[in-house]
Amino acid sequence: MTALSAASAAPASPDYDTLSVDLAGRAYDIQIGEGLLARAGALSRAVLRQPRVVIVTDSHVAPLHLKTVEDSYRAAGIDAASVIVPAGEGSKRFDRLQALLDDLLDARIERRTTLVALGGGVIGDLTGFAAAIALRGLNFIQVPTTLLAQVDSSVGGKTGINTEQGKNLVGAFHQPRLVLCDTATLATLPPRELRAGYAEVVKYGLIDDPEFFAWCEANGSALLAGDAELQAEAVRRACLAKARVVEGDEREEKAEGGRALLNLGHTFAHALEAEAGYDGRTLLHGEAVGIDSKLRGHRGHRRANDAGKV
Amino acid sequence: MTALSAASAAPASPDYDTLSVDLAGRAYDIQIGEGLLARAGALSRAVLRQPRVVIVTDSHVAPLHLKTVEDSYRAAGIDAASVIVPAGEGSKRFDRLQALLDDLLDARIERRTTLVALGGGVIGDLTGFAAAIALRGLNFIQVPTTLLAQVDSSVGGKTGINTEQGKNLVGAFHQPRLVLCDTATLATLPPRELRAGYAEVVKYGLIDDPEFFAWCEANGSALLAGDAELQAEAVRRACLAKARVVEGDEREEKAEGGRALLNLGHTFAHALEAEAGYDGRTLLHGEAVGIDSKLRGHRGHRRANDAGKV
Repeated sequence: MTALSAASAAPASPDYDTLSVDLAGRAYDIQIGEGLLARAGALSRAVLRQPRVVIVTDSHVAPLHLKTVEDSYRAAGIDAASVIVPAGEGSKRFDRLQALLDDLLDARIERRTTLVALGGGVIGDLTGFAAAIALRGLNFIQVPTTLLAQVDSSVGGKTGINTEQGKNLVGAFHQPRLVLCDTATLATLPPRELRAGYAEVVKYGLIDDPEFFAWCEANGSALLAGDAELQAEAVRRACLAKARVVEGDEREEKAEGGRALLNLGHTFAHALEAEAGYDGRTLLHGEAVGIDSKLRGHRGHRRANDAGKV
Repeated sequence: MTALSAASAAPASPDYDTLSVDLAGRAYDIQIGEGLLARAGALSRAVLRQPRVVIVTDSHVAPLHLKTVEDSYRAAGIDAASVIVPAGEGSKRFDRLQALLDDLLDARIERRTTLVALGGGVIGDLTGFAAAIALRGLNFIQVPTTLLAQVDSSVGGKTGINTEQGKNLVGAFHQPRLVLCDTATLATLPPRELRAGYAEVVKYGLIDDPEFFAWCEANGSALLAGDAELQAEAVRRACLAKARVVEGDEREEKAEGGRALLNLGHTFAHALEAEAGYDGRTLLHGEAVGIDSKLRGHRGHRRANDAGKV
């Protein structure tokens, strides 16, 4: 079962929440709070198999957050190397995957080395997939820095890359060992990125939680305007919902009522993104999901009439 | 537990043996006998998730065996497409993996489609890895056609490709759903390929089975000269030994006494192959393993004095 509880390890009252994703043999925690990037080293230590990580991030996120995370690992006595890949959906390509694996192997990763995915959904998907196949499988930690990644892609172990035939057609189910959501990073997001992530938040309300949908209706504007408390609450609620769905159907094998429900809004979204070239210049993933939801009007869904507000 | 028993499904006395690899949630059978290629369709049916397979083979094996296998699937009412890749270790490269995945996606594989790896170790490693990551994981069947693949690489789920940094550094643990060893295919092998596979057979005797090592000493020459009965017995004994080791340490996580034992002879072998260019023109994998075993003399092993005979 998933439990939302205050963490009790620290002697002082902790200022973050811990959620657990309960998968047999692959259980892990999601920690949510402000300022977690600077504590990544101490918070990661329990899941590392050797005092060594390689941080993978992108050219947008590196100048904002990489030094904070590197310093945090080093302060905790953990060796931290880093690899910076170009920002954008274009990095979820075969040639970029190969380049990343080359960089990791050149850095002499070992089977006990842990990768740290620092960035948005592209970095999480790419790094998680590299972790799944480098040396036939390394542990990895998700440190999502966008709302979309914090509420959706960092939890659940879906990793992968795009091909000419479509999105995420090559990849692996590979669960992270830990997810660290530093909600302070959301303050650095452009409004458009925040809206794209918020569409996924509302999705959880649409799928199975009328009360949370009502919460979104009441608080969405303030959240998008930058209210940090509301943003953190949205991340907690969304992660809790996502964790429950993943626990019930880790590999999306149920025909009904399982993980496929989370694909709400994704049927046409992937096609729209393919047309737009995946580069985020014309259409962000969350925007495509929002457009899809509007186009389809959630027919057959009990909250169909609210769909236009997504 | 692994059990070697006569299969009992067929009404007539079956002319093949069935071994089981007992892994929780991923158990599978190894079927060993003459003429199994022509019965692949009927023997596979129970593990298919839809009546559809894509056979992956190489340019050496295709003219020898592909039609037999395709016909067998079609006769069983199973749709069978095929992809032919260039023969040789050079196909365990990133660009060839990408080309194979493109071919599979263009063939409109679905998550319930099963891949069939028809060929030697290169085809098994490449196809198994493609199965591990296409659509985040497909089932696959190993149909090994070399002695090396029948006694070693087709069992245990190690899949992968080579990189500039070394052999098998990118890959996945992905167990097949079935292994079909048609021992009649061994008659088509060049003597050098047979010897390369036989080095791996003897390895099982060296590791933990003095009685089997004595059997090899008594029968090795006749086996290499083409005795089909002895070849089939060697495949059975080797698969049984491999299955036991894999059951005890599926992901090679034990520091001692587990799957890493099977790397006997591989420490320098990979380096020798890297120097020779992996293309099999100058050095086959089994030959490299044999050279390694001689160089190292199996120090510390209780049958160290016999090592020179490998």
